[in-house]
Amino acid sequence: MKADLDRLMETEGLDALVIPAAENDNPYRAYLSNGAHYTGDVIKKRGEPPVLLAHAMERDEAAKSGLIVYTYDELGYGQLYYEHGHDMDAFNAAWYRRIFEKLAVSGHVAFYGVGDINRMFRMLLYLRDALADRVTIVPGAVNPNLFNKAYETKDTDEIARLRDVAARTSAVAQAARAWIAEHCAENRHAENRRVIQADGSPLTIGDVKRYVRGQLFERDLEDIEGMIFAQGRDAGVPHSKGEDSDPVRLGETIVFDLFPREPGGYFHDMTRTWCIGYASPEAQAAYDAVMEAYHRSIRMCKPGTPTANLQEMVCAYFEERGHPTVRNTPGTTDGYVHSLAHGLGLNVHEAPYFRSKASDYHIQVGNVFTIEPGLYYPERGYGVRIEDTVTINESGSVEVLTDCPYDLIIELNG
Amino acid sequence: MKADLDRLMETEGLDALVIPAAENDNPYRAYLSNGAHYTGDVIKKRGEPPVLLAHAMERDEAAKSGLIVYTYDELGYGQLYYEHGHDMDAFNAAWYRRIFEKLAVSGHVAFYGVGDINRMFRMLLYLRDALADRVTIVPGAVNPNLFNKAYETKDTDEIARLRDVAARTSAVAQAARAWIAEHCAENRHAENRRVIQADGSPLTIGDVKRYVRGQLFERDLEDIEGMIFAQGRDAGVPHSKGEDSDPVRLGETIVFDLFPREPGGYFHDMTRTWCIGYASPEAQAAYDAVMEAYHRSIRMCKPGTPTANLQEMVCAYFEERGHPTVRNTPGTTDGYVHSLAHGLGLNVHEAPYFRSKASDYHIQVGNVFTIEPGLYYPERGYGVRIEDTVTINESGSVEVLTDCPYDLIIELNG
Repeated sequence: MKADLDRLMETEGLDALVIPAAENDNPYRAYLSNGAHYTGDVIKKRGEPPVLLAHAMERDEAAKSGLIVYTYDELGYGQLYYEHGHDMDAFNAAWYRRIFEKLAVSGHVAFYGVGDINRMFRMLLYLRDALADRVTIVPGAVNPNLFNKAYETKDTDEIARLRDVAARTSAVAQAARAWIAEHCAENRHAENRRVIQADGSPLTIGDVKRYVRGQLFERDLEDIEGMIFAQGRDAGVPHSKGEDSDPVRLGETIVFDLFPREPGGYFHDMTRTWCIGYASPEAQAAYDAVMEAYHRSIRMCKPGTPTANLQEMVCAYFEERGHPTVRNTPGTTDGYVHSLAHGLGLNVHEAPYFRSKASDYHIQVGNVFTIEPGLYYPERGYGVRIEDTVTINESGSVEVLTDCPYDLIIELNG
Repeated sequence: MKADLDRLMETEGLDALVIPAAENDNPYRAYLSNGAHYTGDVIKKRGEPPVLLAHAMERDEAAKSGLIVYTYDELGYGQLYYEHGHDMDAFNAAWYRRIFEKLAVSGHVAFYGVGDINRMFRMLLYLRDALADRVTIVPGAVNPNLFNKAYETKDTDEIARLRDVAARTSAVAQAARAWIAEHCAENRHAENRRVIQADGSPLTIGDVKRYVRGQLFERDLEDIEGMIFAQGRDAGVPHSKGEDSDPVRLGETIVFDLFPREPGGYFHDMTRTWCIGYASPEAQAAYDAVMEAYHRSIRMCKPGTPTANLQEMVCAYFEERGHPTVRNTPGTTDGYVHSLAHGLGLNVHEAPYFRSKASDYHIQVGNVFTIEPGLYYPERGYGVRIEDTVTINESGSVEVLTDCPYDLIIELNG
């Protein structure tokens, strides 16, 4: 958690962290600046609170962090730009030298954040040489990096925000289920009848997504990554988002994966699989197996358990029932084709990860992660996934933050 | 424009561009992949169309680009990860070697995109050495970089999309103006009376923003960067976003800066300054001066004109009227405190830029940029900015894409 940063910096031998100015959506900056909306730098020296550098236009927004803010002008940005602006390499060196002098930064410094790869690669190569008399710029450990390690557990304030986003997201999913159920089925005898709206037109996936976006909007959540509402074959390809123009049909599996966030803040992540009216025996069996894998996974969520053990258990469980998995059939697009879970917070995917190989994560108090087993058969026209976000609370027990029925079948009552 | 990329690559001596896989919102990937929603790589060799690399889960989304897609599995990702996943440096080297072999990439290669600074710095340092027998990894020019140069002019398809986003954004701003006008004023004699809702409660800035977000939602636009609706002193700080809890008051300047985008695509950017009921003579004079600066700027928008000339003209115009500017008072927070304009497209700020110093941009056919003069006096409690987005069309004339009245005063008719 955030309070671990100084210790993690010490472990890596870092004297300061820099989040350089950039306009991109930047979880690193949000983490250190308490979610302030500005685009400038953060400088954090070990053992001291972060300091923010902001353009004068953004000074009031930066000040909402509750941290010390220097404006660029206070550091003489304008004059340096006037002198060096024709040569951005030289300007960057002069500017970071000024910052490091003003804030008494020296020793080993690592740059983190989200930004323009090319610009940052060039800038860091240049700074590394140009400022070598003052600081040693290091890339830092990468897998996991220092922030990933901090993100792995959440403090009380973060859990409270994640719980709030969970409640709002769950309400949206429940509303969507209830709203779909208000519709009626096409009045004819046929396979794959369509769901019909009050005006007689078919309900499309685009209509459902629009309804869901409206519900998210009502609850101040943003669908920044784009929800999945994928039917039939598309449900069998885990990250296919669903085709807006497709009519919603009875008897097809629908994978509804919702992962909104509060603006600039924390995510939730949940998935339900629905069949309207009825399910094929094969889809029903896949759903039953996925639910059982889900429950077995939840029971294994105890502090100290390697996350890889859960992925191994789920692979074994599915393999015993004849499903290919990423363990026994690397590269498979049929069966169980992904890892079981991932942490989330300011990033929709972050530590801890739940891969079977090359990972060294253990379940800990303060973790917030998904549990999301699934089975996929695109060529047979279906896919199933069930996903909740959970946390490991202070007593070491698992608490499910998502609150939405798991039932596969939605009966139409319109 | 996009068609210039091969020529720009040749100028910089680049044989291939790589957009590495990353989950971040990534205008570089959107540009090369025609807006496909996936998180994998793009490889573009000079003289050839881009090729996409996607996780199997995202293969259908990547295919919507209309470009060739390879799945990670087709390139043997799983096996490489199994062999090297415990050492991400070695894995990255093996993986990019595999990609470069498969796609016959050699020579000078530059990595672009938006990503994790620290991870990318480390990866590129490592790849530069580990793959030196096959490719020369170069940072490329930075100010402007190759993409910035391409972004500077838009092709017909891009202009059409920007025009569409402009029309929808303008409709939102007009609706907001009309909606505010439907309210009534507090029934008392006082300075700075409040605007009142039908239920008698004061209309707050949070209420207005919520209405605007609803209007954006209705038109499939996202407020990804967070609009500005800032009143009084806050209007005098160009990037202060406005306080949700503040009641909207008569007689205060309100700076309303709206810069939404279509999901994953193109931005619009516009600002209006409003005073409800009446304006102080000082604010009215500032508004008149800003409008005159706007019109003079528009008249200078001709192909071949250095953008710095417009910034110089506006500084001179304001200075003659006694306002401090960034030209005669570097670092000022009173008067004209920013540059006149910026290009926009997949980024809300991109080339061309309109600074007076250290810039070498000329107005060209196919440019899309803002014109946004402003005057700011936070300590005197007001600020004024007027901003439209314009394009330079094939005949060389300027076309204003924003469509919204400029009138300062909103009369309440509720």
